[in-house]
Amino acid sequence: MNVKTGNGNKHFRTVDFDSSSNQVILIDQKKLPHQFELIRLDDFHSTGSAIQDMTVRGAGAIGATAAYGFAQGIRCFNGQTTSAEFSQHVEKVFQTLAYARPTAVDPLNALKWMKEKLHTHPDQDKAAIDQLVLDLACQFADEDVEHCNQIGIHGEKLLQGKKNILTHCNAGWLAFVDVGSATAPMYHAWENGQRFHIYVDETRPRLQGASLTAWELYNHGIPHTVIPDNVAGHLMKQGLIDMVLVGSDRVVGKTGDVANKIGTYTKAVLAHHNNVPFYVAIPMSTIDWDLDSGDSIPIEQRSEDEVVYASGLNEVGDYQKIRIANPGSPAANYGFDVTPAELITGIITPHGIFKPKDLKKLLPKESSEFSK
Amino acid sequence: MNVKTGNGNKHFRTVDFDSSSNQVILIDQKKLPHQFELIRLDDFHSTGSAIQDMTVRGAGAIGATAAYGFAQGIRCFNGQTTSAEFSQHVEKVFQTLAYARPTAVDPLNALKWMKEKLHTHPDQDKAAIDQLVLDLACQFADEDVEHCNQIGIHGEKLLQGKKNILTHCNAGWLAFVDVGSATAPMYHAWENGQRFHIYVDETRPRLQGASLTAWELYNHGIPHTVIPDNVAGHLMKQGLIDMVLVGSDRVVGKTGDVANKIGTYTKAVLAHHNNVPFYVAIPMSTIDWDLDSGDSIPIEQRSEDEVVYASGLNEVGDYQKIRIANPGSPAANYGFDVTPAELITGIITPHGIFKPKDLKKLLPKESSEFSK
Repeated sequence: MNVKTGNGNKHFRTVDFDSSSNQVILIDQKKLPHQFELIRLDDFHSTGSAIQDMTVRGAGAIGATAAYGFAQGIRCFNGQTTSAEFSQHVEKVFQTLAYARPTAVDPLNALKWMKEKLHTHPDQDKAAIDQLVLDLACQFADEDVEHCNQIGIHGEKLLQGKKNILTHCNAGWLAFVDVGSATAPMYHAWENGQRFHIYVDETRPRLQGASLTAWELYNHGIPHTVIPDNVAGHLMKQGLIDMVLVGSDRVVGKTGDVANKIGTYTKAVLAHHNNVPFYVAIPMSTIDWDLDSGDSIPIEQRSEDEVVYASGLNEVGDYQKIRIANPGSPAANYGFDVTPAELITGIITPHGIFKPKDLKKLLPKESSEFSK
Repeated sequence: MNVKTGNGNKHFRTVDFDSSSNQVILIDQKKLPHQFELIRLDDFHSTGSAIQDMTVRGAGAIGATAAYGFAQGIRCFNGQTTSAEFSQHVEKVFQTLAYARPTAVDPLNALKWMKEKLHTHPDQDKAAIDQLVLDLACQFADEDVEHCNQIGIHGEKLLQGKKNILTHCNAGWLAFVDVGSATAPMYHAWENGQRFHIYVDETRPRLQGASLTAWELYNHGIPHTVIPDNVAGHLMKQGLIDMVLVGSDRVVGKTGDVANKIGTYTKAVLAHHNNVPFYVAIPMSTIDWDLDSGDSIPIEQRSEDEVVYASGLNEVGDYQKIRIANPGSPAANYGFDVTPAELITGIITPHGIFKPKDLKKLLPKESSEFSK
């Protein structure tokens, strides 16, 4: 999307690749909203670390980062692509990137698909393999953008007549290659003249709502208000929220259960209790066709430091990390939760809007296709 | 309660009064958990400001602070207590203290009761009046402690067999003159040998859970874990919370509707959805006998700065205020919400545990008695 830089409006993708230098290029999301900065990652280990430490985060964005990182890792190999050494290298690159964030399924889906294409490709010479993995990574990234745009087209009609929409965490263009999932209907509707206001859950502990979604909406000129995660229940009870719209890190295709940022389940229960429609927007790469239930989704637990410290700019503009909780008290940091299908009104996909239980109609005929 | 100071364990009340210097003495709660400091307030204006700016907070604590502040304000009057000037002065002191925090009813109940006693007192000479207001303030404070202890005695049996209890905000001894409301059953049960673990909602935006409740429990040696407000729903769904126990800033006596820190309603909806018992603990001064419904309780809205900035200690121990949200994005800061009676399992009072709808059995026979 367009970002206001010193040189005027410039178009950026969240994730990009420089094939000449074999570098993955990311917007450093840990520095937003205070600083907009691109970073270049030199090897697949650094790319894996950037996923793990949340320099890049969000379902589609880490999927594309993993895809580019896989291409990066394969392309740096110096040796015979028919050797056992190459097979081991492929597996090492795969493992480094596929499980850097355990709850998200996009990296895993992207890499399984790329690995299968790699193994079944007829031409195994180095130049052909290098071109193949680059093409596949670009295809994944481009399809992520296309899927988000399709989500926008299908989803924007849901916003008609809605005054106040609640979103949780960041499922905006920063969480994808571009456009975003939950934000796609908002951006499309806004461009087409619909007017509304977004309540943005700040989304503790990492504050992706207050720092990323608010930054996105501010840059787009869409009216919004940041609220502590405790507030949405009160607003729903007062009739001040017309719809909830969130993204997801993994959707169980067979059931429609949705894993997303911790606190999403809470918003779904509140929406259900207050008869507020609750929608989830996802590209196809977020669907897990293997699991039988949301209960099987692994829930990432992260460092308690993310809870007991906060980071930001002090009054003179210096970046500071401060302790906000009682020293000596332990903290728990579950990254995600699972919202069962029965609490979800609909799932907005690139192929239309589905009841959770009907999502299985999209089951791909060939298991190797993450995206059809 | 006992606080570990440089000179060993020392007993402190959250709110105290020095009658010789006519000063209200408070634990400065804005400095906890990083620093334990007492402050002395010289006049009733400063005392009102300390309530407003949350140097002191919590239902019983601000009730007692208002009561002592009223005594302080009356005692500083130099003139005829039978004059019109005195009546105006009484009204000014009353107004300054009674509405410093609009949602809480304890200050209002304390001050209405004191003003009525003042107006009906047979001896109107200055010395008698000064003694009367001092005695009444001390009576209110002592009764707050006694009520909290009675809550502990009635409530501790509810904790039997409970492994994990969730609490929200701080309804501990720091929120009262001593002992606390929601913490009273915990402290009593712990002293009597019961063993359990407390999940502490950090309670954004002001983080009273992470900074005050965690500090209290840490000092008492009660096992606890601080969690972001987004986490409790996930834990309830996993069967990891056996009971929710919170305080209140105002309970509608006629209906059992409960106003408490923003986010309490959310926890009640989650508890209801997951069949987790939800209890509220209150002294009698927290009951509002006038209102007909929780919908009539005024909800305080505070500065958005409390949402977009965070405060704490940096790595070298300096106190810092940092911006954590996107600059330019507005924020909303509702201080409280109302949990309707139907979501509440029981209300623990000094006179026993009641179903919300049965609370009206405690309706005082004389309206001037806040505490019977």
